Amino acid sequence: MTETIGSAASQTPSGGLRYRRNIRAEDLKAVRELVQATGFFNSAETEIAVELVQERLAKGAASGYEFVLAESGGSLAGYACYGSIAGTQESHDLYWIVVHPDLQGKGLGSAMLKETEGCIASAGGRRIYVETSSRAQYAPTRAFYARCGYREEARLADFYAPGDGKVIFVKVLGL
Amino acid sequence: MTETIGSAASQTPSGGLRYRRNIRAEDLKAVRELVQATGFFNSAETEIAVELVQERLAKGAASGYEFVLAESGGSLAGYACYGSIAGTQESHDLYWIVVHPDLQGKGLGSAMLKETEGCIASAGGRRIYVETSSRAQYAPTRAFYARCGYREEARLADFYAPGDGKVIFVKVLGL
Repeated sequence: MTETIGSAASQTPSGGLRYRRNIRAEDLKAVRELVQATGFFNSAETEIAVELVQERLAKGAASGYEFVLAESGGSLAGYACYGSIAGTQESHDLYWIVVHPDLQGKGLGSAMLKETEGCIASAGGRRIYVETSSRAQYAPTRAFYARCGYREEARLADFYAPGDGKVIFVKVLGL
Repeated sequence: MTETIGSAASQTPSGGLRYRRNIRAEDLKAVRELVQATGFFNSAETEIAVELVQERLAKGAASGYEFVLAESGGSLAGYACYGSIAGTQESHDLYWIVVHPDLQGKGLGSAMLKETEGCIASAGGRRIYVETSSRAQYAPTRAFYARCGYREEARLADFYAPGDGKVIFVKVLGL
């Protein structure tokens, strides 16, 4: 799955950022608009993002999808979606992390990721996996994960399409 | 996900093997009994195997799960379950391949895998991924895939549990 994040940033996100974990019906629209606003995802990817919100609304924790939503001034500034990996003892997948384009470059991506890692650690998770593309478009994404302490563990050549491989990053919490 | 296969075998499966692709309600019971009969899978893994059959029965092709079932003398001798990977152009996952213990070592695993690869190629698939454990218990499984032309492309250390990594094999069809 794909993710987009802000460009290089180490500042603290400016003012009034609030996190919440409960998904509400109005997040369907807000997530769709946020994902579209990035200009980074195609329509199929946008539908997948919205479907995960729908799944969570319909099934709750049984959906396997957990959310960390960041609000600024009452609107959705960004969000992360993750879940424990079935059949594993302590591995989690980070499915999405998205920051509103107006707020990129302010450290919001790093802050949300840190918040998400805290949630995963609290739930007994220890290894966080994130998959992204090997394409040039994703170089800032890969650099972001590297800065946040994720290391590339594997590459699957041509996984998404010829010339478009999958890169798997991992972070082991508590190291 | 895990798989079990016969031990080393290159003979043709003996007599009267028939393949079918359509899942029927009675396969719920047959798949459960087959998976249990191997003695290889724990109860959680068995439930996952049965759930995939349920998903296919409930949703048809929209489930994303395709089956190749092998029957011998009217009973289920083995089966494979696979599906195209969403968001990829030509990649497929092989989720399960199971052979009845009475029929292992007769080349049925290889024959079913070949049949499955033909189905995937017909559907426009070109890359087949299969994931298994790095544990010693899975050494015959890994050797089976290697014999069938799959190569290890990646290992994720401690993925399933500490000391239990994930090994990702791939076969590129038409090479």
